[in-house]
Amino acid sequence: MPRDAAVAPRRSHAERGTAREGTRERLVRAGIVAALERGWAASGVDTVLRSAGVPKGSFYHYFDSKDAFGEAVIDGYQAYFLHRLERCFGAGAQGRPIAVQLDDFLAVSAEGMARHGWRRGCLVGALGQELAGLHEGFRERLLASLTQWEQVLEAALLAARARGELPPATDCRRAARSFWAAWEGAVLRARLARDGAPLREVIEDFRRLVAID
Amino acid sequence: MPRDAAVAPRRSHAERGTAREGTRERLVRAGIVAALERGWAASGVDTVLRSAGVPKGSFYHYFDSKDAFGEAVIDGYQAYFLHRLERCFGAGAQGRPIAVQLDDFLAVSAEGMARHGWRRGCLVGALGQELAGLHEGFRERLLASLTQWEQVLEAALLAARARGELPPATDCRRAARSFWAAWEGAVLRARLARDGAPLREVIEDFRRLVAID
Repeated sequence: MPRDAAVAPRRSHAERGTAREGTRERLVRAGIVAALERGWAASGVDTVLRSAGVPKGSFYHYFDSKDAFGEAVIDGYQAYFLHRLERCFGAGAQGRPIAVQLDDFLAVSAEGMARHGWRRGCLVGALGQELAGLHEGFRERLLASLTQWEQVLEAALLAARARGELPPATDCRRAARSFWAAWEGAVLRARLARDGAPLREVIEDFRRLVAID
Repeated sequence: MPRDAAVAPRRSHAERGTAREGTRERLVRAGIVAALERGWAASGVDTVLRSAGVPKGSFYHYFDSKDAFGEAVIDGYQAYFLHRLERCFGAGAQGRPIAVQLDDFLAVSAEGMARHGWRRGCLVGALGQELAGLHEGFRERLLASLTQWEQVLEAALLAARARGELPPATDCRRAARSFWAAWEGAVLRARLARDGAPLREVIEDFRRLVAID
């Protein structure tokens, strides 16, 4: 018998770790898509498993319950969205005026929604509406996500204020809260209308509200 | 056997009509509450029937399907909400400045949300997030609801502009769209934070955006 034949390839501990992470990540990604398109109650574990191409037995290997999976889905979306915010508004973006940063965020967001036929909005908006009154753990996690987005934008606004792009008296924390409230509503409006105009309008409104330029 | 004993009271056709309407209205009201608190997928017909105190057989007497019931729920919420908007922003409210009309709307909305422990938001926001990508009939109906709210507010803003409370160049249709986008986001934020501050802030922002006063 030749060497290595009929022998399962041996993998290092690190490689096995990566393989496990791969399945878990596929499940989380499928959960995010399902929650974005159908909400949480209508996102059955079976459907998520099917779309992730993962056998049923695996689910409870990774998650104790659908609730635990939900928490991983919220965390996964948050990691993805913070990455986008970091690109648009993070330290590396501060060579660009805040008006350009906002336009970048608008462009990438509108492009993403249009690509999926406006069927996918924002996970925090979607699950927040569905679960805020039902599930205390989800509510706290979603609020924490939104608060982090506010902090990222607040930092970008403070930097813009320091560069003289905003009036010196601008309350940047308050402005960041206003932005995300208006943005979430605009995402809803864009999904209902299947049109990007509400997203463009909310950016215009914000520039006017905060007297950018 | 005395007259009228052991005889079911005879009701006129009109009375029977009213009784039927009563049951249907109870079902719709229970459906609105369920959808506000739990979203649509998690609102089972059985739960709605129980909370309305209506026997199971009755449901399909009034509605062909859960979808038909959903349409009645959206229409019922719209009638209720338009009544509120009419009180706050309608022709009868035009003796009051638009700033006062907005404060009235804020007060009644925040009071309603607080009374239910911030567990109930806005049906258009909740079902819009959950169903916009799934159910074309619901999406169109929800968008039509929102468009009607925009029209009511636009008319109030036009009246305020005519009274000199807004700059003459104000685009009242655009401003009304901005208001509802920001309001829907603020309702989400208020539900997540279980606090009325986001609602107050969005009214302040709008007054500033539209340069009211």
